Amino acid sequence: MISPGFTGAAIDRADHLRLKPERIAELEARPQARLLRLADLDPVLDEAGRLGWDSLDRRPEGAELIFLGLDKARPLFAPLRRLAAGQRAWSVFRLLAIMSAEDAALWGTARALVEWHNRHRFCANCGSPSELFRAGWGRSCSACAVEHFPRVDPVVIMLAEHSGRVLLGRQPQYPAGRYSALAGFMEPGESIEEAVARELKEEAGISVTNARYVASQPWPFPGSLMIGCFAEALEDHLTLDQDELEDAMWVDRAGVRGALAGEVAAPFLAPPPFAIAHTLLATWLAS
Amino acid sequence: MISPGFTGAAIDRADHLRLKPERIAELEARPQARLLRLADLDPVLDEAGRLGWDSLDRRPEGAELIFLGLDKARPLFAPLRRLAAGQRAWSVFRLLAIMSAEDAALWGTARALVEWHNRHRFCANCGSPSELFRAGWGRSCSACAVEHFPRVDPVVIMLAEHSGRVLLGRQPQYPAGRYSALAGFMEPGESIEEAVARELKEEAGISVTNARYVASQPWPFPGSLMIGCFAEALEDHLTLDQDELEDAMWVDRAGVRGALAGEVAAPFLAPPPFAIAHTLLATWLAS
Repeated sequence: MISPGFTGAAIDRADHLRLKPERIAELEARPQARLLRLADLDPVLDEAGRLGWDSLDRRPEGAELIFLGLDKARPLFAPLRRLAAGQRAWSVFRLLAIMSAEDAALWGTARALVEWHNRHRFCANCGSPSELFRAGWGRSCSACAVEHFPRVDPVVIMLAEHSGRVLLGRQPQYPAGRYSALAGFMEPGESIEEAVARELKEEAGISVTNARYVASQPWPFPGSLMIGCFAEALEDHLTLDQDELEDAMWVDRAGVRGALAGEVAAPFLAPPPFAIAHTLLATWLAS
Repeated sequence: MISPGFTGAAIDRADHLRLKPERIAELEARPQARLLRLADLDPVLDEAGRLGWDSLDRRPEGAELIFLGLDKARPLFAPLRRLAAGQRAWSVFRLLAIMSAEDAALWGTARALVEWHNRHRFCANCGSPSELFRAGWGRSCSACAVEHFPRVDPVVIMLAEHSGRVLLGRQPQYPAGRYSALAGFMEPGESIEEAVARELKEEAGISVTNARYVASQPWPFPGSLMIGCFAEALEDHLTLDQDELEDAMWVDRAGVRGALAGEVAAPFLAPPPFAIAHTLLATWLAS
């Protein structure tokens, strides 16, 4: 079984409790209840490299609570605070390298929800301030009665194959040497397979056939569903969209193997293991 | 190849033109430019049952334009008007039964965009009115400079299998006799396979393994991406979530075959061919 990063959270989300404020209040009052420690949006790890948790009386001033779910008898919550606007630091990528899959998945869920609330404090339908409801899994507007739910933005991310090589590209903001699978947000009116073909045409100028799903992962920066696919390229001549990619290249199996092994002489620096592009490359190599 | 409903639009979306207002204005001025005829959100078909199109001088008073793309030399637009609030009529389902796949896909794209604009006229970040940009593929806020993009909400829809039968359920608002695949919105922090398992547990009380992707379709009511899957149920005893389902049952191949053939004696009324639940049932029968 393929297990991409940010999957494998083992808690019970207990959706049936979210609309029952009296049940949520009872869970908050339990001595076993735990509050996720966050520094801005990043996790705070303990000495063992596990997610840090506080008791609920450590709830920060003015913070609302998001109910993450039940870890057996432990009700788990995340604090929702107003975040300062501006760029996020990516130092969390160093923490993710040592976090367990379960912890990364649980923190990713909390991060996606906290950032969604922060970016959606007003009702898009009428402009009034909206309020948290469903124990943090939605916002409702008392002015126009519209309910809003957390965005999950589907993104296709894919390896096009041609003559035993796969297409990798690099965006200007990537670390030096990094290449990864091409990707793009899905739009209204297309299937996953159609989005794969459209993105490869737009970004690399190639036509593909036989797009096929491989695996998916939630990506909490800020709230995507990465849908990983393979596709067969009908041509290998590239015409790059310079607004999206600063370079792209076809890489053979030896090159991918070297990059995933971290070899200095490899043709590119591989994406990190918690990114589904890594999963796609490893799956392709094993196929 | 599996071709679910609302897929197969043959136009070029020409994404590279969307941020160039002068190019869009030039396309609007072409005599070949066409404007989709809409009655509220529904398509207006011509005598041949094809989508109706007007020239751009028939643009309704006060309507903005959404650039759908290029049908060879014909630039295609959809009119964006304020819609009255309230329930939509489902009479469009009768039209969809006679529309071509291409037309349904193109109209579905327009419908999703028009409804998204109508429900998102204010900036969720600051509450100010937002403005159409990217030729209709986004809204921007001049007060806080945040850009917003059309929502595409991923939904898992799945057939759980057990002992040669598949699980179908019915929601209270379905037409009499209709049963369909179980489905639910994906949440932050889960993969497609995890969402399939969570939804089947929540709605039917069953545990599953080996969830696997089959096909996907855009669903423009109002803007979902339906992600169709199979999964193997580990048990067949059902515990229904009565808020979601009024009934559910296991159906064998003969029952599914009869329903897809429209037999009166079939155990259920099948979902229409343009719904991916139909595609899933047909794919399962052929497997």
